[in-house]
Amino acid sequence: MQHDSLSVQVTRGGIIESEHSIKAVIVSSTGEVVESWGDVDSLVYPRSAIKAMQALAFIEMGGAKQFAFDDEEIAICCASHSGEPKHVATVQSMLDKLALSETDFECGCHWPMRAETSYQLAGEGKTPTQLHNNCSGKHAGMLGLAKLLGSSPRGYIEVDHPVQQKIASTMAQMCEYDYSTAPWSPDGCSAPTWAMPLTNLALAFAKFSCPQGLAPERQLACKSLYDAVVKHPFMVAGTERYCTDMMTLLQQRVFLKLGAEGVYVAAIPELKLGIALKCDDGAIRAAESAMTALLDHVGITNFVSDEKMSNYRSVTLKNWEKRITGAITCAL
Amino acid sequence: MQHDSLSVQVTRGGIIESEHSIKAVIVSSTGEVVESWGDVDSLVYPRSAIKAMQALAFIEMGGAKQFAFDDEEIAICCASHSGEPKHVATVQSMLDKLALSETDFECGCHWPMRAETSYQLAGEGKTPTQLHNNCSGKHAGMLGLAKLLGSSPRGYIEVDHPVQQKIASTMAQMCEYDYSTAPWSPDGCSAPTWAMPLTNLALAFAKFSCPQGLAPERQLACKSLYDAVVKHPFMVAGTERYCTDMMTLLQQRVFLKLGAEGVYVAAIPELKLGIALKCDDGAIRAAESAMTALLDHVGITNFVSDEKMSNYRSVTLKNWEKRITGAITCAL
Repeated sequence: MQHDSLSVQVTRGGIIESEHSIKAVIVSSTGEVVESWGDVDSLVYPRSAIKAMQALAFIEMGGAKQFAFDDEEIAICCASHSGEPKHVATVQSMLDKLALSETDFECGCHWPMRAETSYQLAGEGKTPTQLHNNCSGKHAGMLGLAKLLGSSPRGYIEVDHPVQQKIASTMAQMCEYDYSTAPWSPDGCSAPTWAMPLTNLALAFAKFSCPQGLAPERQLACKSLYDAVVKHPFMVAGTERYCTDMMTLLQQRVFLKLGAEGVYVAAIPELKLGIALKCDDGAIRAAESAMTALLDHVGITNFVSDEKMSNYRSVTLKNWEKRITGAITCAL
Repeated sequence: MQHDSLSVQVTRGGIIESEHSIKAVIVSSTGEVVESWGDVDSLVYPRSAIKAMQALAFIEMGGAKQFAFDDEEIAICCASHSGEPKHVATVQSMLDKLALSETDFECGCHWPMRAETSYQLAGEGKTPTQLHNNCSGKHAGMLGLAKLLGSSPRGYIEVDHPVQQKIASTMAQMCEYDYSTAPWSPDGCSAPTWAMPLTNLALAFAKFSCPQGLAPERQLACKSLYDAVVKHPFMVAGTERYCTDMMTLLQQRVFLKLGAEGVYVAAIPELKLGIALKCDDGAIRAAESAMTALLDHVGITNFVSDEKMSNYRSVTLKNWEKRITGAITCAL
């Protein structure tokens, strides 16, 4: 079934104040498009939504075993984390196990995504390091992949480095998409991001949800990654983040991951489905609202009480004095 | 002339990654719609874009003279400031002159809008007060209006308080719009914001740009407010803010003001024009890009060098390592 784009509405004082348009697609693990909204053949940059696929090569080459990464460390390879102390400590542990240091990272510094964590850091008279970069876990995985490939880690973020070429070929197989002529750009963390149709992004996560039919070591790697992220949703995002909170509510039934500019993916093993969506204007608030509507739509939220789901289905907006001013909702 | 909505495009790696739709209208001081884009009759909440109109009653009743507010203090009545030390000191000075204190504010606390200022505050072991609220200058003006009206300041943010009723009746005259049945809501700072057609918002700023024909004390008040804001653009926003930087570039020829959810207004005395725009999805980056295109369109940027305008006409996007990743542009 093909539909028009989804609409996410932001209301205030009883009228619509702002409105977002969303493209979305649900794909089965056998590659069928189950349902779609808007033009899902147009190219989108998956941004951080594809991190689990970027981690796949490292895991299937045995990196987790070789460097003794535990499940939390595997999970943070797929994260856009909030730079909270637990995240930073986990990535430091990975660097220790790789016998590398923070200066080997090429992702750049930024203040922790969680504002309260930034204020705490500043209050201690500190400034952020590359460990606080929301992508530092992914970069630890990339440094590990450089070691597995026997390459120098220097320049591991460059598009022609063996690390990125290996990642691209793995992603190309999972997405069934040829990146050789695809538009690409450095992402926020300088690693390349390649554009692809939204349907191909959903396909990769459909296969991730049910990897039967893939090569045996890839099946194992998908399962190992999936188990790690759903067991440790805090490592994938952080305090008061949609990915973490919704994965926690859904009790290991769904893997969810945000990407910059309003991208979201989901992998749902018990339904053998992948979902990918993109907010046309790049708004994360709208991508989250639409993802909730799609999770409801496929029925995977049925076991969660309405009480727990209600503030995701209609996100209450409050002002600085905690007065209610409006809501964000997505009607499917 | 009526056109379709404006489009603001965000590119990455040579393709459009995200896109925004903008409604905009240019109105003359005599009330003519000169040119419009999209449905400009639909209701929008002006949010902070209307602060100069909220300050008007206080100024025309002689508040600035009575409380000895200088031009910087008048300017910050119209501000969404970044909470930088100079802003906070200015608002404190206003409270001193009003013989009131920070606890009389009812706007709520938030960390300074400028992240660096927040980190500095946290580094000093401090947390924000209501003085740091981006609307604190507006609220100082509202407290002053309560004094002028002989009302208790308590509850000055409530829609039925004499302060808000006086502001509403002044705005209704400037916008030529009857708010009595209009949708309204508490704004972020708890003061009411009333919805109105975008054209009526532009009309108010067209009259503000050329107040001839208004009552003599209102003409003087408009002129006094205009002079204050264009002489002190830092007080209206802050470091690295579009309002401040563009007003500085345009050397007192234009008053510019942002509102939440992607609203922008401009008043241009030498052309006797007002401009109002609203990004449908609420994005500020798009509202700024469209405002630059409209300022170019009416010719008021002609005297500024292309070199100085170029990074507003096409805003270069860079990542954490300062690599160029894309651009934001508005084609008119």
